[in-house]
Amino acid sequence: MDDVALLTPRQARQRFRQGLKTPTAGWCKGYVQTNLLIVPKEFAYDALLFAQRNPRSCPVLEVTDEGDPRPLRFAPDADLRTDLPAYRVYENGVRVAETTSIVDLWRDDFVSFLVGCSFTFEAALLDAGIPLKHISLGLNVAMYRTNIRCRPAGRLQGPMVVSMRPIPAELVARAVEVSARFPHSHGAPIHIGEPEKIGIRDLAKPDFGDPVPIAPGELPVFWACGVTFEAAVAASRPPLAITHSPGHMFISDVKDSATTFF
Amino acid sequence: MDDVALLTPRQARQRFRQGLKTPTAGWCKGYVQTNLLIVPKEFAYDALLFAQRNPRSCPVLEVTDEGDPRPLRFAPDADLRTDLPAYRVYENGVRVAETTSIVDLWRDDFVSFLVGCSFTFEAALLDAGIPLKHISLGLNVAMYRTNIRCRPAGRLQGPMVVSMRPIPAELVARAVEVSARFPHSHGAPIHIGEPEKIGIRDLAKPDFGDPVPIAPGELPVFWACGVTFEAAVAASRPPLAITHSPGHMFISDVKDSATTFF
Repeated sequence: MDDVALLTPRQARQRFRQGLKTPTAGWCKGYVQTNLLIVPKEFAYDALLFAQRNPRSCPVLEVTDEGDPRPLRFAPDADLRTDLPAYRVYENGVRVAETTSIVDLWRDDFVSFLVGCSFTFEAALLDAGIPLKHISLGLNVAMYRTNIRCRPAGRLQGPMVVSMRPIPAELVARAVEVSARFPHSHGAPIHIGEPEKIGIRDLAKPDFGDPVPIAPGELPVFWACGVTFEAAVAASRPPLAITHSPGHMFISDVKDSATTFF
Repeated sequence: MDDVALLTPRQARQRFRQGLKTPTAGWCKGYVQTNLLIVPKEFAYDALLFAQRNPRSCPVLEVTDEGDPRPLRFAPDADLRTDLPAYRVYENGVRVAETTSIVDLWRDDFVSFLVGCSFTFEAALLDAGIPLKHISLGLNVAMYRTNIRCRPAGRLQGPMVVSMRPIPAELVARAVEVSARFPHSHGAPIHIGEPEKIGIRDLAKPDFGDPVPIAPGELPVFWACGVTFEAAVAASRPPLAITHSPGHMFISDVKDSATTFF
């Protein structure tokens, strides 16, 4: 088996285009990964405003032009209809399909939002000597709905979703410092330890992704997560929306070190 | 004469509400100042997308709800129709009025954008020992259209506008370091020295504000400027738009040290 960390984003997208379905944590070391939200243009202002009002959860990296499935800035030769490992289709807030291609669903009025993802700084965490168990165990990251309300925008509202990584206590401060260098990929954690305080009752039962065991001496560390957008879709029931499947991200051509790309 | 640097934002807004027209550089030391763009809702998506695609020029701090003149996050008791020292009204890209109140022009479909302003980090520059001549000379800051094209968005396009401050050569690096700490207020300069390289032919003839003399031993240092939005309005000719008058900013209740307010 080859090392997916060493693939180029183009190589990875080629595999997903051919139908491979897999979480992308650990893939294409050093490249920006993103969440995806697609809505009809009629809903795009609310989505962009929701992101502006909730930038820790939804840091927008690129917004495509209406009907254009290409992210011209982050991967000009990619096709957002095929190049993610998995998509979720929502109608009126209800998930009606999970699929590896949305070519047949595409419309000329679709607008796509690429939103920063914490997978982007995982290479930097690993380089800083911070172990990441979901990667070493071959799992998807664990994600949870919280009791933190997002600031509503137009017809969109919902809870903040977080990703959780168990971090050895002595490395928690370093994990904060390293991730804080990536403000467009959620930046520093929004919460450390004490999951009950943000409304998470049972870490063993994530709302998205896989449970990741926490060993004695480790703290659960929580980062804002772009799946917040998907939770807002479920809570707000727009007629139609498409997201990536949690953990199954878009891998862009932009290097994670380009934190000043704005 | 009292020291306007020591006024609270509420006191300053009260004066502007009563009709005082003045540039706001140096006012209310330590508080976030912002640019203003107001457009009908029908145009708001293009404006927000333009800002997303040009975040160095147009870092959006707050977007009001349709028809609501209150910036609920940055100054909940303020009224954006009266609380700036001066406004400019544009019809089809042509400036048709400069006024100290827009109460009579207000519409229920207006959406207001508050955009970061470099005046916000001037207190930090002064605290770092960097002289600011426009303040010491009682002038408005000098602003210029450049040959740097903004990334277009929908019906909006135009040139980047910059503000210029003459900085003693030995303090230029420090000015970069200090301003870089304020990414939501344009951050680090976008250009240093050599104005011709960004299309500025004569520093003595700014496109907005006042000329500020440059002494031997000083370099002209250029920061992205929120007047970029006004230049986009002039270049793109939307039916109706209202901006602040350059240099005559909205002064918010948020402290400039709250750089992590997102």
